[in-house]
Amino acid sequence: MRVRNHGHTHVCHTFVTLPPDRTLTSAPLPQGEGFELMRPDLLQTLALRVAERERAGLLRRVRTLDQARSTRVMVDGRELLNFCSNDYLGLAQDPRIIKALQETANECGVGSTAAHLVCGHRREHARLEEALCEWTGRAAALLFSSGWLANLGTLQALLDHNGVCVQDKLNHASQLDAARLAGATLKRYPHGDAAGASRQLAACAEQPALLATDGVFSMDGDVAPLAELAALCRRDGATLMVDDAHGLGVLGPNGAGSVAEAGLSQHDAPVLMATLGKSVGCMGAFVAGSRALIDGLTQFARTFVYTTAMPPALAATATAAVRIARDEDWRRDKLQALIARFRAGAAQLGLPLANSRTAIQPIVLGDAGSTVMAAQALEAAGLLVTAIRPPTVPQGKARLRVTLSAAHMEADVDRLLDALAYLPR
Amino acid sequence: MRVRNHGHTHVCHTFVTLPPDRTLTSAPLPQGEGFELMRPDLLQTLALRVAERERAGLLRRVRTLDQARSTRVMVDGRELLNFCSNDYLGLAQDPRIIKALQETANECGVGSTAAHLVCGHRREHARLEEALCEWTGRAAALLFSSGWLANLGTLQALLDHNGVCVQDKLNHASQLDAARLAGATLKRYPHGDAAGASRQLAACAEQPALLATDGVFSMDGDVAPLAELAALCRRDGATLMVDDAHGLGVLGPNGAGSVAEAGLSQHDAPVLMATLGKSVGCMGAFVAGSRALIDGLTQFARTFVYTTAMPPALAATATAAVRIARDEDWRRDKLQALIARFRAGAAQLGLPLANSRTAIQPIVLGDAGSTVMAAQALEAAGLLVTAIRPPTVPQGKARLRVTLSAAHMEADVDRLLDALAYLPR
Repeated sequence: MRVRNHGHTHVCHTFVTLPPDRTLTSAPLPQGEGFELMRPDLLQTLALRVAERERAGLLRRVRTLDQARSTRVMVDGRELLNFCSNDYLGLAQDPRIIKALQETANECGVGSTAAHLVCGHRREHARLEEALCEWTGRAAALLFSSGWLANLGTLQALLDHNGVCVQDKLNHASQLDAARLAGATLKRYPHGDAAGASRQLAACAEQPALLATDGVFSMDGDVAPLAELAALCRRDGATLMVDDAHGLGVLGPNGAGSVAEAGLSQHDAPVLMATLGKSVGCMGAFVAGSRALIDGLTQFARTFVYTTAMPPALAATATAAVRIARDEDWRRDKLQALIARFRAGAAQLGLPLANSRTAIQPIVLGDAGSTVMAAQALEAAGLLVTAIRPPTVPQGKARLRVTLSAAHMEADVDRLLDALAYLPR
Repeated sequence: MRVRNHGHTHVCHTFVTLPPDRTLTSAPLPQGEGFELMRPDLLQTLALRVAERERAGLLRRVRTLDQARSTRVMVDGRELLNFCSNDYLGLAQDPRIIKALQETANECGVGSTAAHLVCGHRREHARLEEALCEWTGRAAALLFSSGWLANLGTLQALLDHNGVCVQDKLNHASQLDAARLAGATLKRYPHGDAAGASRQLAACAEQPALLATDGVFSMDGDVAPLAELAALCRRDGATLMVDDAHGLGVLGPNGAGSVAEAGLSQHDAPVLMATLGKSVGCMGAFVAGSRALIDGLTQFARTFVYTTAMPPALAATATAAVRIARDEDWRRDKLQALIARFRAGAAQLGLPLANSRTAIQPIVLGDAGSTVMAAQALEAAGLLVTAIRPPTVPQGKARLRVTLSAAHMEADVDRLLDALAYLPR
């Protein structure tokens, strides 16, 4: 991965490896107390990589926002219409879930104070796990404090250096890193290519194998060919894992996700992972599957065993949010209507739409510089849309990642389309 | 690591590798649709490992508790006095931080809805980072949703396969895994042995090196020899990283942690990590250090870039908790008095105390079975103390991990000592 292994420049006293545009003066040698050190300095190397990224025009900057009304945020004193949150159902500001947080905090305080296996597992966590099982049609579930921890712990528990993890090339960073941490052989197939996945599995027919895919891809919004992947896993004896972070709440009957939409049972898709910080409007994540899977993760997922449980009040809040997400189909209907409106308008404008029917509607402009300028132009027009650049997406695939929410109005979408119409092209 | 790589039993159609006590009937071969599969089944392997752990008497079970008053929990309908939480200052149930959570939820809702670099970074996160800088005497800080994510992201950003990570053998699991995920060479030195650390550094004098240590060790409660480690890092050109999850709030002037207690500046200990789910009574974690370090992590820590920010209301709550933890020295004084009382009483009873002056006061009984029985006997007497067994601690080092809190009373400690006196020995 470029993010991790590319661009490291180590400085040492005998020879110096620097890109042609950099001189030694920008990388002073580390000096000890009176003698020269042999060892490259980690913080200097990090600073050189930051400088390199800045020169490439790819520096990331954190901006501080204030929340206003649900789809509105304050940035530098101006109210912007937000088209980059993952609050797909508009629940993060819902008065009922705010009330759930406030009421449960009265009963159970803030921190859980310990790991689940020590004394951190409260009634509120158990209830959330039950609600998630019911929603996703799974026998058991296990909570994690973030999607990263769920993916890392699950792959660590299921795989070791004897195992193979076959993954879609556009899977989330946490899936790729999880395979690495597990020590498994990572094999990636072209995006959405079930035949490619099948070839990868055939090439390791005697090794234990996990086929891991995002349900909905975070930067593209398209849906994995889940039924095909499940069929080939069944045929080839591999285990299917779906990370449905961006599908849960948005797709499927009662918003049960991309896996439910594809009609896949627990038997077909035995390892289901999703997060609670997107359509559910809270934070954290879970893995759901058979009782045996969850028993195994409880023993062997190090990110579950050796970590503090999420605050019980947040678990109670997520339980309330799950019920709303499941029951209020009008939110999904409204979201789909807004998606259709946006796509029709954008097509009319001749914008490069992606093949997405989810809340994630990227406009792939290609060049990173132009994409940043487009985002700046939208911001001048009162709209917040993030420019997504390499290495988050491949070189030449920079994009405006537009996300829609059930909290948006039709007029909001029209305002976005109006602004997009005026972008220089 | 035993947790990850030990005990995997792969079943395939040509030969079967099983421990002597297991027969093929306990590991049915996977069957496909009409033909026999070559590939071992991941979920069956996981189930076998669970069964193996159960036979060894080391199965973990999640128990569901209810919160009662601060140091009291309800388990199976009985109120127990809790001696296993990490709420060292008694803040998790503090009415002021509960109120902070409730009030901020009104203003900013629940979920942050996005990554920090998209639109998830709010005023509340920025204020928490400032409060943490002020507390720890660092120039800049970066929030993560858990200590795991902080350690994983930091080591990924600082190290690659050219780097060496020198670690104390008893470091937290997340530090060990972070070095693995970074692809660095992991070298472990005997617990607390600065001379051993120095030898490890000398053996790789030309490679970039991070020396990572817990400030306070989570299962032993002792403090790392930080001043010595800092001196040898300075001498050998290595970078010192301290995970102060269990030291922050407990040690040092104003509870600024083990690093502050050892008098180490940002220059001496350039990478400081700690969590907010223990003495701060909330959840999440942070890394603090120079502006250059934090700028680098903002770019290259994948667990920061590709994850949803913690709920802003929780950040505001943690800010309130940090102020209390910093300002209310009486909590540390009371905690130290309780520690002294416990240690004096336990010494009088001839209990095998560890060399700890922190809130973590393990009683190392050795055998896992006896330790579980001791925990059960304490529970019968109305006390909750967790039995910590391998692989969390080394073989033969099972222990009761007693933790004390400023929320305990002297009478609580006396009740614990009374119950310990009656343990069969």
